[in-house]
Parts: sequence; C-alpha cells; structure tokens
Amino acid sequence: MSVLEISKSAKKAASELAVSNSEIKNRALEEIIKVLSDNKERIIAANQEDLQRSQEENLAAPLLRRLKFDEAKLNDVIDGIHSLIKLEDPVGKVLLATELDQGLELYKVAAPIGVIGIIFESRPDALVQISTLCLKSGNSVLLKGGREATATNRILTELISEATTKAGIPSGWITLLETRSDVNEMLKQEEYIDLIIPRGSNEFVRYIMDNSRIPVMGHADGICHCYVDADVDLEMAVKIVVDAKTQYVAVCNAMETLLVHEQIAANLLPRLKEELSKFNVEIFGCEKTAAIIDVNPANSETWKTEYLDYKMSVKVVSNLKEAIDHINTYGSGHTDSIITNDREKAELFMNVVDSGNVFWNCSTRFSDGFKYGFGAEVGISTSKFHARGPVGLDGLVTYKYKLYGNGQIVADYANKKRQFVHKNILKKD
Amino acid sequence: MSVLEISKSAKKAASELAVSNSEIKNRALEEIIKVLSDNKERIIAANQEDLQRSQEENLAAPLLRRLKFDEAKLNDVIDGIHSLIKLEDPVGKVLLATELDQGLELYKVAAPIGVIGIIFESRPDALVQISTLCLKSGNSVLLKGGREATATNRILTELISEATTKAGIPSGWITLLETRSDVNEMLKQEEYIDLIIPRGSNEFVRYIMDNSRIPVMGHADGICHCYVDADVDLEMAVKIVVDAKTQYVAVCNAMETLLVHEQIAANLLPRLKEELSKFNVEIFGCEKTAAIIDVNPANSETWKTEYLDYKMSVKVVSNLKEAIDHINTYGSGHTDSIITNDREKAELFMNVVDSGNVFWNCSTRFSDGFKYGFGAEVGISTSKFHARGPVGLDGLVTYKYKLYGNGQIVADYANKKRQFVHKNILKKD
Repeated sequence: MSVLEISKSAKKAASELAVSNSEIKNRALEEIIKVLSDNKERIIAANQEDLQRSQEENLAAPLLRRLKFDEAKLNDVIDGIHSLIKLEDPVGKVLLATELDQGLELYKVAAPIGVIGIIFESRPDALVQISTLCLKSGNSVLLKGGREATATNRILTELISEATTKAGIPSGWITLLETRSDVNEMLKQEEYIDLIIPRGSNEFVRYIMDNSRIPVMGHADGICHCYVDADVDLEMAVKIVVDAKTQYVAVCNAMETLLVHEQIAANLLPRLKEELSKFNVEIFGCEKTAAIIDVNPANSETWKTEYLDYKMSVKVVSNLKEAIDHINTYGSGHTDSIITNDREKAELFMNVVDSGNVFWNCSTRFSDGFKYGFGAEVGISTSKFHARGPVGLDGLVTYKYKLYGNGQIVADYANKKRQFVHKNILKKD
Repeated sequence: MSVLEISKSAKKAASELAVSNSEIKNRALEEIIKVLSDNKERIIAANQEDLQRSQEENLAAPLLRRLKFDEAKLNDVIDGIHSLIKLEDPVGKVLLATELDQGLELYKVAAPIGVIGIIFESRPDALVQISTLCLKSGNSVLLKGGREATATNRILTELISEATTKAGIPSGWITLLETRSDVNEMLKQEEYIDLIIPRGSNEFVRYIMDNSRIPVMGHADGICHCYVDADVDLEMAVKIVVDAKTQYVAVCNAMETLLVHEQIAANLLPRLKEELSKFNVEIFGCEKTAAIIDVNPANSETWKTEYLDYKMSVKVVSNLKEAIDHINTYGSGHTDSIITNDREKAELFMNVVDSGNVFWNCSTRFSDGFKYGFGAEVGISTSKFHARGPVGLDGLVTYKYKLYGNGQIVADYANKKRQFVHKNILKKD
C-alpha cells in the first residue's frame, strides 16, 4: 500500500475508533498483553537478528543497548500496558457543561485527535508504549521506527495488529512505515494525518516542522538549567545539581547549564567541582567561574549547547533577574529549577521563566510522564500549544463542543424573544 | 521602532504582565472604560475621518457598515469590558495537583502565552475586544487592523495604552502595526512572538500559515452543514435550516450546505424552498434535489464553496453514514448540525463528525463565544490543537508544570530508596 492509501485507511479506522468504548479498547490492550506474552521467543529472536546485523554494521554501544529487547524489557512493557488499562479513558470526559437556555445544553467533551504519525528512535519498547497510548486515546497511528530495529518492529506491529483486530478494533488503525521516503510521503498527507510527533535530534525535528503543513508536537531541544540563589542550603544545592547533571546524562531533562549567584559562587563552585569530578564531568565556565575553579573557557556557543554527556556549562550571575533573562534567552522551554530558601524568589522564577516545567528545590530529572504519574508518555513537548511538558494520554486528545437543542434558532435571541442563561451544569465527581 | 524592536519590547512587557495580579489587570480595564467614555467625541471624529476617506475610495456598503464606530457601538464595547472584568482570571488556575512524594508537589497551572500577533478586519470594535481579552489573560499583543480604520485604530490604541500605563501595566504590551510590510516582518519574529491569530479570508490565513514558523491559530474556512435525517420534525427542520442560512449570511457559522435524507427529501425540499425564497436564497443542488425542486445544478466546486451570501448547496443522501462522510470530506471542521428525533443517530453524528462544534436540533449560528457564555471571543478555531471552536479567555492561556520540592533528587527513586505516591491533592471548589 502507498502511504496515501495507508493514511486514508488510518483515517477511516479513526472514525470507528472514535466510537469504540473503553471496554473494547481495554479488551484490545489485554489481547496485546496476551499475544506479546505468548510470542516472547519470536520477538526476542527477531531482536537478535537486528542486534547481530547492527553489530556487523558497527552500531555504537549505547545504541546497541537501546536496541536490545530482551525478556526483562518485554516484561516492563507488559507491566506498562497493565497500568494503562487501569488509567481512565480520556475520551468522552466532560470538560465544561453549560445550559445556554432551557433545553439548549453545551458540553465541551474530550475527543480523539484522529490520525497521528510518530517517528521514533531505535528502542522497540517505544513502539509498544506509543501504539498502546494511541489505542487507549482512540487514535490511529502511523509508526516509523529506527532502521536498526526493523525485524523487531515488524513482528511487534504484526502481533499488536492481530491482537486488536481480534478484540474488534478496526484494522488499519496501526501501520509501520519503513523507509525515509515513506516519512517524506507521510509529511504530505495533511488531508488524512492530524498530528506528527517526531522524536529524535534537533535538526530532525526542525526538518519535519519545515517540511509539513501538518501540526507538529515535539521538543526541539533540552537545554535545562539549575539556578543556585545566594540564600541557599549549600549541601542541598550540590546534591540537586549533581543529580540533575549526572543521574542520566543522555536525556533531555538532564541539566546542561548551571547559573550561580555571585555571592555564593566562591563557596559553592569548589565543593561542586569536587563532587562532579567523581563523575568526570567536564566544565565550561564564564570568566567569573574561571576565577574560582579550573574550567574550560566558555565561548559564544556554550550557552546554547545541549551536551547529553558528562559536560556542563557554568555561569556566575549578579541576581535572579539575570538568571531568568539568561534562561529565557538561551533555554529551550523544557525544564528549569531554582534552588533557594526564599519562597518569594522561587515563585517569581517559576512565574517568569517561560518553560513547560519550572521547579523549586528539586532536580530537573523529575520532568517525566512516569514520574508525574501520567502512567506513560509519548514524549515531552516544548511547544506552548496543545500539550506542554510531558505528554501522556491527556495530550493525545483534543475536544469538541456538543450542543443539544430541541429546535432553537438564533433569530429568537437576536430578536430578544429569548435570552441566554449560561448556567454551569457540570457535575463534579 | 522596527517590528523587531516592537516585538522585543512586547516580550519584555509580557514577562511583567505574567506576574501582574488580577487586581491590577482589572484596574487597567476600568481605566480603559474611563478613557473610552471620556473620549467618545474624539473617537467618533477619528472614525468619521476613516468613513469619509473610505466612501471617497468607494468602499462597499457592508464594509462601510462594519467600519462605522458610533456611540452605540462604543457603548457595546464598554459593556463588553464590564463583563470581562467580572470573568475569572484564567492565569494561575490550578488544573492538576499531585503529591509525587512527601514534600514534592506538582501543580499544572494556567499561564499566559506571551506575545500574540493578531491581524483583524476593518471593525474597530474588534481592536478593543481583542486587546482587552489579551490584557486580562496576561498577554502582550501586536495588532494589525484594516487599512480603512487607520485613524480609529490609532486613537483607540493610544487611549488603551495610556489608560493601562496609568494602572501600572508595563508599556509596550500593546502596539498597532500599520502596513502590510509590518505584517511580513512580524511573521519572522519567531523568537519573540508566540502565536499569530489571523482573521480574514481563507487565502490570507493560508498565506500566514505558509510564511511563518510561529504557531497560527485561525479558521481557514466556515463550510458548515445541516443534515436533516428521515426521522424528523419537518417544521423544526425548516425553522433551523432557514435560521442557519439566513439569520446572518456573512459569517463563518452560517450554513453553506444542506444534506437531506432521501426518504424525507420530497416532503422537506418544496416546503423549505418556499421559506428560503422569502429571503431570495439561491440554491445549487445535486441531481436528486433537481428532480424535486427547481435549482441550479451543482458542480465539482459546489460542496467546497463558502458562499457567505444568500446562496446554498443541497445534496440528497441515502443515509447517515453518507452524510457524515460528506461532511468529513468537504467540511471545514467548523460547525455541523444534525436534525433528527433519534438520539442514537445524533450521538453517532456528534462523535464521528470531525468538527469543533457538533450540534443536535439547533442552528449552526449558535457557534460563538458570546452565545457559549465565554464573555467574548478572539475568533473561532478550526484547528484541533490548543483551542478548538470559539476562543475566549481560556484559549489565550497555556499552562506550565510547577514542581515544589525540598531537595529531592531522582537518584533516590532510581535506587528505590524512595517511591512515588502520586496522590491527587487538587482542591475542588
């Protein structure tokens, strides 16, 4: 099938999925668990094939680790689906209810988005997480995974498709795309695809945004900051900064730049350097930093750099305002944390820093759908629109206004024969 | 000032506006009311200047009517600001609150978008409505109005800016752009402008979307449908269709296409034609329609046409499914209404028709922020993302996640030293 035909068929399936109730969708998720459990050996064998080919092609070790899909990872994925089944169905949730007039009732109701195209990296577990989130939220999905994982992705898609058809979900709701030219074709299907979620490098996300009229939800960068204020518990500051930098360096919510108030710099920086040196963290610092500790000199690119590595930038600032301005200039709107004893300063920081996640006295690494209790996430959005921050089930639905009448016409209100009452009739649970 | 400088200054003002409390913003709205009331004569004189020049330039009569800003319209606008003051401040509203662990609390909080660029048509009342909505929601605004209204827009912007500065709102939050080249410059300011809302023709909205990396919220078309089912109260159907078509033809929520179930067509269409002929409505119909009433023949463009006039398209369909498919193929995702006695069919229609506003037994003309009780609207969005349907105050905010800790680090959770509790702590009112 061409990508056009796949997209049309996904749209058609989406119409049917939109009216599939929670029971059917949960039953389909149960079937997925069953089929994954029953076919562990086949899945692992397919993954072995991918691993072997990738080793021969000299794929880097961290990428090989991400590609590996063994029994432990498969069990994690299955646990994830069990949790997803327990989550409330986001579709049909009433967000607002207003009686406009007697017998004329307005409801704002959550509804599926429709067809979502997702481009993700080499982890096969991402395929299962993303497709099950889309299913629960009533969306069709076109998936394009990493080339390295071809065999694993094929068998996973095949099994998921089989399982869901069995449960009464329309076929066509899930399709795996395999080539780069398929992705380019997908970007043209604005008539059938409602949203693209690209996961990958900055350049890649920008390429997608610039080459499609379809709305894109993604994060383009993860340049996260910690700002250590003058009025601070030094030990807490060291602990948080070390965690934010080193707990897992290859992820978008790791800290890349540390901002330090000049009054605390001479106390904090030597102590911090000692701790960071245990992880061999390389530091790029401004001149004031270099006057206190031994660092590589910062240059014009330093503040815009996402290292994703045991490297970080350090800048000494004169006050909170300079810190906020720095973050709003060089940050990527992802996650930024202030470490201070002063609640008022923390509130100002959290209100003025223009990022999706703004933290007080804790590590930037908390910015994550699982940690937030969303059950799962398809990614973290640095856009301000639709979903911002970690995107779970709620980020995969839109809403529509439903108006129930019994013959009302606008002329009667224009002529003042009738008047709007606008009474809130939302039931609270 | 260049558009770049204006945008920078708007961004700076937005940072301050983000922390302006409701009291200051409402005081500023009171000051706007005062200054508009005190300067009625100056405003009307400026508008007379615009009207006279436009008459000399042979501006069409309906446009002249929209341009006119007399005491009655000024009073309406002032009434609107009084209502806006009474509306709840959308900024700071807590949308979700979760205790992640003891002393680690997550809040999802509504926040201003930042800087919004709005391009609107010739009505000067739109300038006041839009700018006061932006103020209340904590956003800076760049306004570009119709050229015809230059003098009126200038004095309105000047007065609003004066009044708000007096109330302590940072200057630079509102600026009037005057030329087409200013608009083109504005589209390039992705670093400073967060959202563009274009109001105008389809071609214009598409031009904006294709020529800016800034997110665009707008409606590109208003091709609204009524579908009259077989099982229906004929009189109600006639009443609703006539209202949807004729109550105000020049607006995006007017019906453009009527779909009729074949079992009812022979009864409905003659009766309807009789009523519509009182308004001289011209009908373009499919072959089955033409076999029942005298109409112009439909062609390949008919179903995609937004007349905004006393003209409409009529198609006879075999069943509900054909009606839904027609709407999802040719509609614009704006507003579509089903007229039927069958609640189940109505629910199916409302769930599967992929539009922002889906109605049962009432006129498409109800799709409007004022009628929905939103107090006011900046426009109607046919996008599925961020805001959909009529966009009021709630559509002018985004949200951010605020996480309050006291030294928590992720390593403790990775090492299982601590566990997440994910307890809902949202206070219901």
